[in-house]
Amino acid sequence: MITERSKLRRLPDRGSHEAEAVNRILDAGFLAHVGFCVNGQPFVIPTLYGRDGDRLYLHGSAASRMLRELDTGAPACVTVTHVDGLVLARSAFHHSMNYRCVVAFGTARKIDDRERKIEALRVISEHLMRGRWADVRGPAEQELKATAVLEFTIEEASAKMRTGGPKDDADDYALPVWAGVLPVSLQAGEPIPDGVESEAPEYLRSAQIFSQSQSA
Amino acid sequence: MITERSKLRRLPDRGSHEAEAVNRILDAGFLAHVGFCVNGQPFVIPTLYGRDGDRLYLHGSAASRMLRELDTGAPACVTVTHVDGLVLARSAFHHSMNYRCVVAFGTARKIDDRERKIEALRVISEHLMRGRWADVRGPAEQELKATAVLEFTIEEASAKMRTGGPKDDADDYALPVWAGVLPVSLQAGEPIPDGVESEAPEYLRSAQIFSQSQSA
Repeated sequence: MITERSKLRRLPDRGSHEAEAVNRILDAGFLAHVGFCVNGQPFVIPTLYGRDGDRLYLHGSAASRMLRELDTGAPACVTVTHVDGLVLARSAFHHSMNYRCVVAFGTARKIDDRERKIEALRVISEHLMRGRWADVRGPAEQELKATAVLEFTIEEASAKMRTGGPKDDADDYALPVWAGVLPVSLQAGEPIPDGVESEAPEYLRSAQIFSQSQSA
Repeated sequence: MITERSKLRRLPDRGSHEAEAVNRILDAGFLAHVGFCVNGQPFVIPTLYGRDGDRLYLHGSAASRMLRELDTGAPACVTVTHVDGLVLARSAFHHSMNYRCVVAFGTARKIDDRERKIEALRVISEHLMRGRWADVRGPAEQELKATAVLEFTIEEASAKMRTGGPKDDADDYALPVWAGVLPVSLQAGEPIPDGVESEAPEYLRSAQIFSQSQSA
């Protein structure tokens, strides 16, 4: 559904409302910035997420202000952005950024059902690192009680991206300025064990959790 | 100034209102998520920024919806987040993320004065890549007209971060589960020239634009 709020206003050729494009961007990331309004004051808070169809699961402390505000059913906005590169043109004006971004609108509700709550936590965990959930101690009852899990239903979403090199003015190509793209990506380093010896599991060493752009 | 909106509600020991901590986090990044409300509907939009004292400069097309909304003087929230690592504990519950984050509240106004506008664009450019501004063709008059530049004055801000390894329950240390930190950082790749030959300038090859955490 495309309405006034999700209509792409700038450069609509860079955008897409297709669910597939939206989901690909959401699945390539793990950190969202969640927006909500309290008496006209916007709040933007970073949080992890997992996706199941058109639902995003968010979690945190049961005392979290954000989760309590969202659970009122107030309109929310969940934005996920991947930076893919700095686009360095010959003129200041044509500098740009390669990126992929989803802006999703909807509302969130707390999950009270115990089994659904555990399943949502599993989805978040597997979204972040596939294979980890089966390896660790699952949530105890008091841990479940201390954790709030919300399902954010995506009512509308738009995907927007930029790829490729700079687009300079014709006259500027003669300038003696280096131009091109500096690729940027979120990278995992070497796992740091916390002291007790054991080899890092395969799923960790091969973690494909970080966004990789298909092109610079 | 600390008020109800910026008071740290969760884990206040992870937070700081000190301007120095706030500025360090802002200066380590270049992408912000800007929140604003229109009739109770939150919007969260990614954008580049530069910092000058307690002001953040934002820019974009003069036709940008976000910039026009912000220029009404409506309350805004600018959030900058660096992901430093995934904290992998022995229990699902104690999984966490190492990060640094600033949530800043304030209002933004368009800069109309020509010289201040150019200076703000220079600050944004230098924030993103120091040394680039002197190298490129500066903005022409019609490019300046097509660009809106806003100054967002930080009225309140809080910094929050987590560092270090997992904190497991005493009983869980006996579990045969790999635990520790998977460091994560935004990394620049090899610059990709757009066709015209010329060696990448020193400032680009040594770009220190990407957030580096001091510890995992």
